[in-house]
Amino acid sequence: MRSLLAWSRIVRASRRTMATGTKKEVIGIAQVNPNVIKAQYAVRGPILDTVNAVEKQLQQKDHGLSFSEVVKVNIGNPQALKQKPITFSRQVLAACAYNELSEKDVFPSDVVDRARMILNSCEGHSMGAYSDSKGIKVVRQHVVEFLEARDKHPADTEKIFMSNGASEGIRMVLELIATGEGKTRSGVMIPIPQYPLYTASLQELGMPAVPYYLDEDNGWKLDANDLYRNVKAARETCNPVMLVVINPGNPTGQILTEQNMKEIIKFCADENLVLLADEVYQENIYAPEKSFVSFKKALRDMGPDYENFQLISCHSTSKGFYGECGQRGGYLEVIGFPDDVMGQLLKLASVKLCPAVAGQIIADTIVKPPHVGGPSRDLYFKEKAAILDSLAERAHLVSKSLNEIEGVSCNPVEGSMYAFPRITMPEKAITAAKKVGLAPDALFCKEMVEQKGICTVPGSGFGQKEGTFHFRMTILPPLEQLQRIVVDIKDFHKEFSTRYA
Amino acid sequence: MRSLLAWSRIVRASRRTMATGTKKEVIGIAQVNPNVIKAQYAVRGPILDTVNAVEKQLQQKDHGLSFSEVVKVNIGNPQALKQKPITFSRQVLAACAYNELSEKDVFPSDVVDRARMILNSCEGHSMGAYSDSKGIKVVRQHVVEFLEARDKHPADTEKIFMSNGASEGIRMVLELIATGEGKTRSGVMIPIPQYPLYTASLQELGMPAVPYYLDEDNGWKLDANDLYRNVKAARETCNPVMLVVINPGNPTGQILTEQNMKEIIKFCADENLVLLADEVYQENIYAPEKSFVSFKKALRDMGPDYENFQLISCHSTSKGFYGECGQRGGYLEVIGFPDDVMGQLLKLASVKLCPAVAGQIIADTIVKPPHVGGPSRDLYFKEKAAILDSLAERAHLVSKSLNEIEGVSCNPVEGSMYAFPRITMPEKAITAAKKVGLAPDALFCKEMVEQKGICTVPGSGFGQKEGTFHFRMTILPPLEQLQRIVVDIKDFHKEFSTRYA
Repeated sequence: MRSLLAWSRIVRASRRTMATGTKKEVIGIAQVNPNVIKAQYAVRGPILDTVNAVEKQLQQKDHGLSFSEVVKVNIGNPQALKQKPITFSRQVLAACAYNELSEKDVFPSDVVDRARMILNSCEGHSMGAYSDSKGIKVVRQHVVEFLEARDKHPADTEKIFMSNGASEGIRMVLELIATGEGKTRSGVMIPIPQYPLYTASLQELGMPAVPYYLDEDNGWKLDANDLYRNVKAARETCNPVMLVVINPGNPTGQILTEQNMKEIIKFCADENLVLLADEVYQENIYAPEKSFVSFKKALRDMGPDYENFQLISCHSTSKGFYGECGQRGGYLEVIGFPDDVMGQLLKLASVKLCPAVAGQIIADTIVKPPHVGGPSRDLYFKEKAAILDSLAERAHLVSKSLNEIEGVSCNPVEGSMYAFPRITMPEKAITAAKKVGLAPDALFCKEMVEQKGICTVPGSGFGQKEGTFHFRMTILPPLEQLQRIVVDIKDFHKEFSTRYA
Repeated sequence: MRSLLAWSRIVRASRRTMATGTKKEVIGIAQVNPNVIKAQYAVRGPILDTVNAVEKQLQQKDHGLSFSEVVKVNIGNPQALKQKPITFSRQVLAACAYNELSEKDVFPSDVVDRARMILNSCEGHSMGAYSDSKGIKVVRQHVVEFLEARDKHPADTEKIFMSNGASEGIRMVLELIATGEGKTRSGVMIPIPQYPLYTASLQELGMPAVPYYLDEDNGWKLDANDLYRNVKAARETCNPVMLVVINPGNPTGQILTEQNMKEIIKFCADENLVLLADEVYQENIYAPEKSFVSFKKALRDMGPDYENFQLISCHSTSKGFYGECGQRGGYLEVIGFPDDVMGQLLKLASVKLCPAVAGQIIADTIVKPPHVGGPSRDLYFKEKAAILDSLAERAHLVSKSLNEIEGVSCNPVEGSMYAFPRITMPEKAITAAKKVGLAPDALFCKEMVEQKGICTVPGSGFGQKEGTFHFRMTILPPLEQLQRIVVDIKDFHKEFSTRYA
């Protein structure tokens, strides 16, 4: 941060150069928000520079590479990797976009009805009008029906905030609670490894992230005793007010047990923390013996002692069996907060005017499938089952194949869309990485793009126990392509290990 | 802000109450980000509470009110007020949403071609994939073609950032430059009256807003001498690094002359400020003798002395003749910034993953109309002309009618979507407002909802010269309805003036 004196020097200097016609910039890197500079977002980070360079090389005639395209398994972007959208969702969106289609006998009757129902809840009966800042009322009602059917506990439309993907909702909540300075600054407990949205957003907001470690040797279990130790230590430097749990895990793929979830809720109650449950992968369950239980259900099952517990849960249209990332649909359920605080959250939403209506429409089709007996219902569930069955097969293939590679171990991908294998790192690779200013697993991932055209994300972008190394890859490519990818990874890992042996 | 001691007291207290089963909340209003609490957003502010109460009353059988619905002229939401969307835009969106329609002979060939062109630039050929964080490449290319045709100066796809409406882009830029503390804190010069997105966002970011006043008696002209005085005074308390200009004006409706714009650019160069040009109303020009000139064109016309000038301009799908607010489409053009700063802006965009793809598709159809000879072209321009002609008629009607009311004066609505009439305020009304803790024009607007069902925004929400009073209303309702509204306003104003005389 510049002193005033330094600033006036810059101003004077710039005025001098102005006279000669070459003006100094007002905003150079030294004038940029330092919290922004600190923020790191590995999923779309420096690895993409390597990808761009390789893709440029591929455009040349004799590029000399052993592959013809870069496969992006760095990000959970299902439709980019050829997953087909759910027909009902897209028909409803098309009918809302161009309502004249509804009169043209192009769509099944339940598509027409759903589009009409949504548009009737939009001002001017148009998806081009701003919606309520919390979202279209009928969509929020459908979210409530979905939550009540899922949890067997009541929900409330006034506690639902639709948002542009889950990310925007999460950032809004973090902004809401950013207060205090120094030791009183509100801190947020996040899992390590974590989805880097959290560290990036906290860095932007100048809020301390208080890490707690998931236990890799125990299927990425969350150790409640460890939580108590960590929060106690964190109180020396900041004021932890929130715990983030990602379930099913990202990047780790585990599904928490109900018992473990209740320990976590009890911990939050004991230590006076809000619980932020990132449940965007709730439909992505592959382990046959496991099922998804929401934190809302676990909490309400714990009875009236926990009535005033503050819980925020988020969901998204980007994941699940629909994978509609580009639509930016999602929502928060916010419970246990007093009205005046809810008013502040609504104000934050109001300044953004409203969430994208297309995303809200897609969200509606996800929380409320076509009704029983409707012409679209069978196809909807057929498409859903085909995608989820295939994802389960791919999840199994990836963890199995990775575990067959010497020097690689990977917990089962029970849920979500990722494998997060641990790799042994030769000493010479660690030294080589240091020389070029990279984390060792960043070097591994960079070279895997250059040699095999496979783009993953280094474990260092998510956080990992000191001295361990990982990478994250999605399980999303079509099965046949995925089979080739795991072979390529095996070959690359062998070559890498030999070269740096 | 709590001390650590106070905090531990709260924790202990909460543990005590826990034992009895009634747990104290973690986040009460005292634990909310104070910048969020400070932020005010008048357009969706407390006036909506009155609207909600009146709408509830209207649902009762014998409600005793003289009107049957509340007309919301508080916000520029064209399609909520029955403006029809542009057919081409919606057909392209529908074809992108459900691509099978393209093979069904439902749409004109240029709609099918455009949808294909956009989808070919999306990963996986789907609008459900995340796009580049800057936006879909072909859409950015079309934005560049639009800018080059408009300005007769080159543009660059790498300088274009698509965003969720203009608002998100603006907030991203403000966050980028938020740095320093106390006297070195970066400040932003904003017009008074202003669009409250600016004050709200600056308050959220803890950045000082440095006001400069538009000259109401001079058609809301921007007085360059006044700017020099203001920035000098502001340097005593903060570090002004940016000037915001809204052209055409919101809420004020004026269009700047080219001469005035060049004075503003020179001022920014002299005083080392980035210029943020909010040009979302660039297509909403009603004064026959005036036309829109972009700041980019004015700047480039000033020649090589201003080559490195830092300018950010924004545009939106929400306004113009299309009025697609709910789609949340928009973009920034960011010029004159070094690569490392552009990299930081891209990182901020990356954390949000990508702008809503539906909004990007609508933006594409706005910057690039159907091609010459295409089957959709005539209808497109017919719809465009009909909307803009009608808006011009309504703009004229509103300012003329308001000026006919005794005690009301209103500058001509040359552009944008709003009238911002000045009203005389009886002393007794000022006293009455004080008693209930309202600004006098907030009392006026509140009573106008209650008595006439007309929802406007008080001038105090935008800022105004001390001792003057205004309200903002859009010109968007259909002509016949608008004619009734201005009569109602006249009657209400008379009754209000008599009652408080």
